[in-house]
Amino acid sequence: MTAPTTDPNTTTASGTLFEVTEPFVLASGETLDRCQIAYTTYGTLNADKSNAILVCHALTGDQHMIGTHPVTGKGGWWETLAGPGKPLDTNRYFLICANVLGGCMGSTGPSSPDPKTGEIYGLSFPLVTIADMVDAQAKLIDHLGIDTLLSVVGGSMGGMQVLQWAARYPQRVTSAIPIATAAKHSSQNIAFHEVGRQAVMADPDWHGGKYAQQGTRPTKGLAVARMGAHITYMSDEALQGKFGRSLQDRSNISFGFDADFQIESYLRHQGMTFVDRFDANSYLYVTRAMDYFDLAADHDGVLANAFSGATTRFCVISFTSDWLFPTSESRAIVHALNATTAKVSFVEIESSRGHDAFLLDEPELFATVHAFLSSVADREGIPS
Amino acid sequence: MTAPTTDPNTTTASGTLFEVTEPFVLASGETLDRCQIAYTTYGTLNADKSNAILVCHALTGDQHMIGTHPVTGKGGWWETLAGPGKPLDTNRYFLICANVLGGCMGSTGPSSPDPKTGEIYGLSFPLVTIADMVDAQAKLIDHLGIDTLLSVVGGSMGGMQVLQWAARYPQRVTSAIPIATAAKHSSQNIAFHEVGRQAVMADPDWHGGKYAQQGTRPTKGLAVARMGAHITYMSDEALQGKFGRSLQDRSNISFGFDADFQIESYLRHQGMTFVDRFDANSYLYVTRAMDYFDLAADHDGVLANAFSGATTRFCVISFTSDWLFPTSESRAIVHALNATTAKVSFVEIESSRGHDAFLLDEPELFATVHAFLSSVADREGIPS
Repeated sequence: MTAPTTDPNTTTASGTLFEVTEPFVLASGETLDRCQIAYTTYGTLNADKSNAILVCHALTGDQHMIGTHPVTGKGGWWETLAGPGKPLDTNRYFLICANVLGGCMGSTGPSSPDPKTGEIYGLSFPLVTIADMVDAQAKLIDHLGIDTLLSVVGGSMGGMQVLQWAARYPQRVTSAIPIATAAKHSSQNIAFHEVGRQAVMADPDWHGGKYAQQGTRPTKGLAVARMGAHITYMSDEALQGKFGRSLQDRSNISFGFDADFQIESYLRHQGMTFVDRFDANSYLYVTRAMDYFDLAADHDGVLANAFSGATTRFCVISFTSDWLFPTSESRAIVHALNATTAKVSFVEIESSRGHDAFLLDEPELFATVHAFLSSVADREGIPS
Repeated sequence: MTAPTTDPNTTTASGTLFEVTEPFVLASGETLDRCQIAYTTYGTLNADKSNAILVCHALTGDQHMIGTHPVTGKGGWWETLAGPGKPLDTNRYFLICANVLGGCMGSTGPSSPDPKTGEIYGLSFPLVTIADMVDAQAKLIDHLGIDTLLSVVGGSMGGMQVLQWAARYPQRVTSAIPIATAAKHSSQNIAFHEVGRQAVMADPDWHGGKYAQQGTRPTKGLAVARMGAHITYMSDEALQGKFGRSLQDRSNISFGFDADFQIESYLRHQGMTFVDRFDANSYLYVTRAMDYFDLAADHDGVLANAFSGATTRFCVISFTSDWLFPTSESRAIVHALNATTAKVSFVEIESSRGHDAFLLDEPELFATVHAFLSSVADREGIPS
């Protein structure tokens, strides 16, 4: 669902809207004549604009990382890590979080009207890549008058953007914190995404992507996609610990297809609530952007080339039980960085919670981000 | 798709049909007034009927384990392991393989006609459990005049049946070979099954299970279910090695939603071909039977109780890269057996191929099954 959008460069429930003033050329070669980016900021930009941190959201995240979400009414997705006194300390840093290009929370995407026709784009919206998302963010950073980011931080697809930032704009990135991510999307991850897309496309209410014109929404297909994806965000151990084989509101199995098990009820709930806040076509586009991400392929097949000459300081973080973006993917990033002049620290955090650990209450994550960022900020002379 | 069924106790393309002659009471308390089991046999039953081995198939398998499949035209699903001179040696043993109750290859299931109404059952078919499948097989074994099985063998859901046989009919099972299986379905596995079922049920051609009456088939939903399940049958490493990020029939990405990647093309093919040989409601029923499987729960929560007093010899086998039925599940079985008087050997086989390794060319699997079975057969005086 696209949040209501009004005039560009104004503040709405989606945050602030930034209109890109010139035609925006995408990696595919297509051009968006007009596009806008919805973003929020937290904290105060200092006089020399040296305390800005860009936070990049994951697949189904958005710019509302702190505070009540205008659509769901729930808290922001990274309140564990960001806020006053937290590792992403809004008392010290100026945080910027923008809805990705292709998203559905105010930034231009497939649910936006095509300025050429006035009709909702649907599948006529051009494919966007992680690099396109980052280029749009760079224009936003220009617009805010910020030359250099103290840090770029993000988990999962957010981490892909962090890596892309460091590769594409190394002089503008003092430090980078890619968390639970990879420099390329794996075969297994492409596979899971493809199943999700096929679930959406199998829904007759999808109408070849033209559901806006038909007055329908492919909620069933999108819910199935979300249910499947959600399993991959948790570890086997976490599912076993949280749900096991416990039954939901009953003492015996029903010998039927009700949600007998708590895990079934939980997944159905995840699917049902997701469709209220996310656009099905955006799900197709953003998953595809992740599939296409392969930083080495863009640099003659050598990942280290992506970071050659970088002065950025890196803090790479993974979680032991994350099987979607396993530690081996983070190690590959670290090895590539070690082959350059980059300064790298790497922490594999012991956690049983799987991929979603980066969103949860993980003290070692907090301590790691706090220590690394403080050190970078101290070195840059940012008052604490 | 239900294979054509004719008169009971006759041989058809589905193999031989065995009609259960008395009402069959299920674990749910429901009764099937009539039911039939389609089965095939391979090799020759010896005079004292002591060389019979029951082979139990997995979720989407059937009785056609060797030879050309009557529906797909492909080879049997366990030709790697079974046949003349193979570990399940048809020159020495008499192999029996029956389509499970609830299946769709000739045994009674939701796509069978309800004898009370003449209409296809659909969701009015009662839920069946792994124990029900095993009880139906026991009636077939009675019918064949076999008192004791030299072995019961199976992988995945087949392994669940093996364990259930050993627990339910210990005196009739000389040896048991549960492969790549578990004594209970895990939370994660229930979760994956639930997503598959929701994909089927989201297909409007499913019609609340009454698609036979509507002249439709929920092929899109079932294909999505199969695609998702198929990912879980392979390891991350196997997907990376077999497909990686290789493109399908093209040198560049399409910036669209075609099957750019080989893994996408492969999964779509798996989904499309599956629906030609499997009934959607059977998929719901058989996945549910697996979800409900919890052998310890049926024995006061103590798995060892399921095997108390067993004289069965066990050979438990797992594969290192199987994340759907990981080695820890096999270890739990072994630990329970060790707490009884049972004789157990346990082999964890090094393989990169994930859960499906039990169906593939795995020499250590062949050597293990061959050695174990030969030893059991020698002890029982079966001529080699």
